[in-house]
Amino acid sequence: MSRPPIRLRSPLCAADPARIEALVRAAGVFNAAEIAIARELVVETLARGEDAAGYHFLIADQGDAVAGYACYGPIPATENRFELYWIAVSPAARRGGLGQQLMAAAEMGARAKGATHLFAEASDRADSQPVHAFYRACGYTLHARVPDYHTDGDGLAIFGKRL
Amino acid sequence: MSRPPIRLRSPLCAADPARIEALVRAAGVFNAAEIAIARELVVETLARGEDAAGYHFLIADQGDAVAGYACYGPIPATENRFELYWIAVSPAARRGGLGQQLMAAAEMGARAKGATHLFAEASDRADSQPVHAFYRACGYTLHARVPDYHTDGDGLAIFGKRL
Repeated sequence: MSRPPIRLRSPLCAADPARIEALVRAAGVFNAAEIAIARELVVETLARGEDAAGYHFLIADQGDAVAGYACYGPIPATENRFELYWIAVSPAARRGGLGQQLMAAAEMGARAKGATHLFAEASDRADSQPVHAFYRACGYTLHARVPDYHTDGDGLAIFGKRL
Repeated sequence: MSRPPIRLRSPLCAADPARIEALVRAAGVFNAAEIAIARELVVETLARGEDAAGYHFLIADQGDAVAGYACYGPIPATENRFELYWIAVSPAARRGGLGQQLMAAAEMGARAKGATHLFAEASDRADSQPVHAFYRACGYTLHARVPDYHTDGDGLAIFGKRL
């Protein structure tokens, strides 16, 4: 059975909080607090609008489900620096390059809004090395680590790229 | 003429957005965007409440003015990690140790809310070295730098302390 085609879309729609929560849960790499934050960002952005909230979303629709999404926005009190707050792809869509497509679309969107640099944070745990490899493959450099930032033994890794 | 005594207080009151904006402006080290963010955090916290907003404030009243303040709160998706988002002291109050008093009170407040670590960010510009010296004097360690994080030539310095 063939899967429906994937189409990138913005902005958010009313069905997205539940669908993005389902995607983030299915991704299998986020904990309960992170899943709640992901949903809350979508709800807040729908309520306030992307520009007021400071969050811009790109959604990869596949039939009635969300196969992946990215969320980025300007970093307050910086000049043309944006952060990639979220990027997540469903396990089924991971082999098809959807992560790279979302990253490229996020970079293009950020550039269109004035970004010259995009930063992305990750855990420095061993099981986050696939995330690091993804950022490196997209041209990002590991700028800094903060040990034990999330909890003991789970530090922060800050990646960045000049767009 | 002697100045009125300084008294630490929380929570926020309705006069604080204007008074904290005046203090942050008078501090002389924050740009227009940062001043706007400082005020917005106060307004948002008054509207939502400290726990819902995730921002806790300590105000140093001196007569009808604010001589200094600190703002801290839990870092989302971390375990018992808090960030010191703001600490500012009026030029007139800087020699009296008010910065250290506010820092000690913020650490105590964060610990009471479960914090085991407090992080604080700063610029890595040469003119921010007094801020770095203040953090070091309070027992903070420079964990990481991200070059050009705020703008070209103005990087990020991340300090932290185990409470």
